[in-house]
Amino acid sequence: MKIEIIDNKKIFINTSKNNFEIHPLWLRERANTKELIDQLTEQRIYDPSTLSETITIKKANIIEDSLNIEFTDGTLSNFKISDLYKELDTETMMKGPAKIKTLWNSQLNKIPITNFNKDFESKETFEMLKKFHEYGFVVIKNVPTKDNYIVNFANSIGAIRPTNFGVYFDVKSIPEYNDLAYTPMHLFPHTDNPYRKPVPCIQLLHCIENEVSGGHSTLVDGFAIANHIKEKFNEYFDILTSTKVRFRFVDKDIILENWGELIELDQNKNLKQVRYNTKIEYVPHLDKKSLELFYNARKKMGELCCSNEFEIKFKLVPGDLLMMDNHRTLHGRTAYDPKEGMRHLQGGYIDFDSSEGKLRHLERKFNFK
Amino acid sequence: MKIEIIDNKKIFINTSKNNFEIHPLWLRERANTKELIDQLTEQRIYDPSTLSETITIKKANIIEDSLNIEFTDGTLSNFKISDLYKELDTETMMKGPAKIKTLWNSQLNKIPITNFNKDFESKETFEMLKKFHEYGFVVIKNVPTKDNYIVNFANSIGAIRPTNFGVYFDVKSIPEYNDLAYTPMHLFPHTDNPYRKPVPCIQLLHCIENEVSGGHSTLVDGFAIANHIKEKFNEYFDILTSTKVRFRFVDKDIILENWGELIELDQNKNLKQVRYNTKIEYVPHLDKKSLELFYNARKKMGELCCSNEFEIKFKLVPGDLLMMDNHRTLHGRTAYDPKEGMRHLQGGYIDFDSSEGKLRHLERKFNFK
Repeated sequence: MKIEIIDNKKIFINTSKNNFEIHPLWLRERANTKELIDQLTEQRIYDPSTLSETITIKKANIIEDSLNIEFTDGTLSNFKISDLYKELDTETMMKGPAKIKTLWNSQLNKIPITNFNKDFESKETFEMLKKFHEYGFVVIKNVPTKDNYIVNFANSIGAIRPTNFGVYFDVKSIPEYNDLAYTPMHLFPHTDNPYRKPVPCIQLLHCIENEVSGGHSTLVDGFAIANHIKEKFNEYFDILTSTKVRFRFVDKDIILENWGELIELDQNKNLKQVRYNTKIEYVPHLDKKSLELFYNARKKMGELCCSNEFEIKFKLVPGDLLMMDNHRTLHGRTAYDPKEGMRHLQGGYIDFDSSEGKLRHLERKFNFK
Repeated sequence: MKIEIIDNKKIFINTSKNNFEIHPLWLRERANTKELIDQLTEQRIYDPSTLSETITIKKANIIEDSLNIEFTDGTLSNFKISDLYKELDTETMMKGPAKIKTLWNSQLNKIPITNFNKDFESKETFEMLKKFHEYGFVVIKNVPTKDNYIVNFANSIGAIRPTNFGVYFDVKSIPEYNDLAYTPMHLFPHTDNPYRKPVPCIQLLHCIENEVSGGHSTLVDGFAIANHIKEKFNEYFDILTSTKVRFRFVDKDIILENWGELIELDQNKNLKQVRYNTKIEYVPHLDKKSLELFYNARKKMGELCCSNEFEIKFKLVPGDLLMMDNHRTLHGRTAYDPKEGMRHLQGGYIDFDSSEGKLRHLERKFNFK
């Protein structure tokens, strides 16, 4: 990308693909003088939709990384050219602060792990968040297990999201459970709480005690599964990406429902979100052919999620905190025998604004990109 | 809708539109015996994707509201016919528990108001949630103003959603603000926090003190605005519903960004969400014609949002709690002079799973529909 001034007042951008003039109003509504932009918050203190459409550029020059403009309404402003380049690359910018996604299956060589650092302004936190966004999960070792530290952990990245399960929840076998997670049963790989609106973005699971021989954690990359289905079973992919199913949670105090595709695509047909939780899933009554196709597709998806090809399995030890992208990564656990000892995890949810917001902040701080 | 058994083993549904057989597997995965469904949680304790596709119905009969089926795998189950009818009406079911939306403009005769009842299991709460979902806002009178009661209020409906502004936040004029809300300036009608991922669904604003002569609350129905634009300015509607813009919040600890259309439609082209917050909005650089169309469309939207035709204005008094659908209703306030006295609101966010989950629960409790 290269910037150029023509006739002293037209700003042109040349890229490998095309050559275009930057619209004067687009620049004008980014003018950053203290009369226009609150310097503490970077918020406009005027409504840009009230700007006259006749405003153009009176004169302009470039000095090093600075584009200096006088607009016809008298506004003088300068723009960092490197920032303009970034903003003009919309596609990259829309990817957010974590641009690389590495899809994985059971051949994943090394589980993404970082060491806990109680200073959340540290490079370890930056690395942790990078890995999380790249792999859809990360294990943080040696996180303190006292005093429900998970809440502090979550709030040090962003803000924990309380639900009707509480600010955090204890996952152990109890008699009066309101979810099968609170039994020693095997749990199929699933995403959490697809019945919530909005669905929680990130799940934290912190191992406090794990004395049993079973109770292994299982994970599978839902995006890898989705791509596999797209490649090998295109008809299945079509029905899974076009059928909204209902998910439902019931207890004595609340009835939660939400709808969504098992594999949701965005407007550009890229993978957006995976939902898989057959315990609580209700497909609407489709015509016979579509319904049978859906059932076959769901069966295939379920088989892949438990398959040696895609599933990884490992045991959490006390202090391990597993942070998972709940829109991408499915998790489960093997059954265990509660008579062997305690198995106690603590869980909680945070959202992408927390993880991405902190990651952008740490990028700014360390000047990493 | 009418149910019928044919040949003792085929279940048919006749509606005014069509006549179809219910798929045996669709019924089978809804079989609710205690071997199949956990009776506490209504969750399946098996993976329905492992059911054999050869299962059919061996015999069936109907006794009053009960459809009784023996499947070929030996499973015996009965189904409440009235529940089946409900579930087969997918379109209605997808609308959620609040099916009526009443759009409004400044001609709205009566602001939707309910009286506070500290028993949140009450009919008042049911009425409040109904009105909220119908109008996109409701004012609850006489909510206690001590001890940050807003948190208790939110958690009595569902769960408050903390953000980097805190579990709740105080809206008053302060010198070290990180958002223009914390100044006495006029605030254009806007939706809150479009830079969050996900965007908060519901905003609560609780008036603690309001001694100033200005500082009136303004509200506008974003869905009414969107429909007006669709009707009168179709080209504007197209660009507003097809252009994702970037929203951004910055302070020393966090950088939040998210993208979305000013008017977002769902897959069926129904209104889904409105975002309007020009202080922090950045449209990507489109081609000249599209960008100018966008600017004109945004200007029109801004004008309508402040217009006598659409905007309502009223003054909150201490104890008033304004609950707003942040995906539909825009809010603002007129400027005020902090020298006249205190103006103190407390704000917080909750999500639709809270409001809808509680509403479904109260419908069940009172058997209302």
